[in-house]
Amino acid sequence: MTTRREALEMIGLATGSLLLCSCAGQALSGGGGAAHPAMAENQSPDFPWPYEKLDPEACAERAYQGFLKGHCMYGSFYGIIGELAEKKGAPYNTFPFKMMNIGAGGGAGWATLCGALNGSMLVFTLLDKNPDPLVDELFGWYQKEALPNYRPQKPRVEIAVTSISKSPLCHASVSRWCKAAKVKSFSLERDERCAWLTASVTKKTVEILNARMDNTFKSSYPLPNYVKECRSCHDKGGMIENTRGKMECGTCHSNADMGAEHPKI
Amino acid sequence: MTTRREALEMIGLATGSLLLCSCAGQALSGGGGAAHPAMAENQSPDFPWPYEKLDPEACAERAYQGFLKGHCMYGSFYGIIGELAEKKGAPYNTFPFKMMNIGAGGGAGWATLCGALNGSMLVFTLLDKNPDPLVDELFGWYQKEALPNYRPQKPRVEIAVTSISKSPLCHASVSRWCKAAKVKSFSLERDERCAWLTASVTKKTVEILNARMDNTFKSSYPLPNYVKECRSCHDKGGMIENTRGKMECGTCHSNADMGAEHPKI
Repeated sequence: MTTRREALEMIGLATGSLLLCSCAGQALSGGGGAAHPAMAENQSPDFPWPYEKLDPEACAERAYQGFLKGHCMYGSFYGIIGELAEKKGAPYNTFPFKMMNIGAGGGAGWATLCGALNGSMLVFTLLDKNPDPLVDELFGWYQKEALPNYRPQKPRVEIAVTSISKSPLCHASVSRWCKAAKVKSFSLERDERCAWLTASVTKKTVEILNARMDNTFKSSYPLPNYVKECRSCHDKGGMIENTRGKMECGTCHSNADMGAEHPKI
Repeated sequence: MTTRREALEMIGLATGSLLLCSCAGQALSGGGGAAHPAMAENQSPDFPWPYEKLDPEACAERAYQGFLKGHCMYGSFYGIIGELAEKKGAPYNTFPFKMMNIGAGGGAGWATLCGALNGSMLVFTLLDKNPDPLVDELFGWYQKEALPNYRPQKPRVEIAVTSISKSPLCHASVSRWCKAAKVKSFSLERDERCAWLTASVTKKTVEILNARMDNTFKSSYPLPNYVKECRSCHDKGGMIENTRGKMECGTCHSNADMGAEHPKI
């Protein structure tokens, strides 16, 4: 069923499309993997930096220690690039690692993108010439997996409870775990959970990078069917095409919120 | 009014607190600006990199050109660090700028943190020893300002419509603008809007950095009162304390969604 408002929006969108049709064929920054053709000139022989296979658990331990020094984003980034720096020296040891401290709490405490994911995303882009499918795999895994699933060798406290975030966002990830574990969001136990989570994300990131090196990488976390259904109207090529993204939709949007006319999700 | 579920949750939280009380006083990664004491050892004399005042409009133009090469996160980062690299050389020109390409579309198209904000957040942390208040100012401004508010000298198409994102997330920012402008999310016009937005964010970032250099920086975008009200129960020190973050709450949470027992927002 189409509401009056939706119909009006569609007319508006169609008008917009007409205005834009003269631009067809020009470069657009479309989906995640789509690139401006002009980006090609932005590749140089020394980029991305070379990767050699690492031990996922060694990197997870380094990430845990990194978390204690610089939080989640620093932890996942230092867990891998720091490991390469120790083994290989330059260029890895030239990186200003401390800048990653800012990713704590989803970016200076704003609870947007999980800092461990932000750090690993930057690891992928620094080490792989086609990082988008690797990010898709990591973020897709993070949304669906019961985490944390890595216990460091010397934890500050034990973490017995796991949760499924249904989102790559710090806010949803932290709150779902707090609810499952029945502990406060600014407790040591939640902080330790995020340290274990950082180690878990780092281990998964290294496993993905190693599979890429072995030419055995394949996506195991495609978009859920119901998200594909939402996207069939709202994303690229859909009738409405008024959004973008790959996050779970139902984490923020609910049937109660969208009204009776919208198809149930 | 407290529902049965809320009461049960509070009992659970209280139990969790008791379990944790023996750990009181240990380092916690609390709010955005809170740091592990251990982080102190993570500061070296050559970090952060020195900043000298830049021309906001020159950086905005560089950011716009950067967007055309490497999207939003690359644009805002290169707009400022690239400008310093051209003026000063090392260490700025040693940075592997191309890694920032991955921030496109809120991180490989996932529509999480706006890439222009992610890039600017990393600029702040690379150039300032206390970047959290600067990030708060930029993100707070982004949530409330009608954007884009900077027109580059040679745009690909004209962008006449602005919108207020009410969120630092790419998904909300893009969809609100698409609705206001009545154009599709994968159109050239939306892409150009994001290019102008990247330039706008870069200009604001430089203005903040310049104010910091002049010792005139002060926060102009505190948390909205209703967000403070939500946090009084749900964030650090609140009765429930089951979340963290500084994003607008009502962008995702609605009265319809939260049920009749929850106070209206």
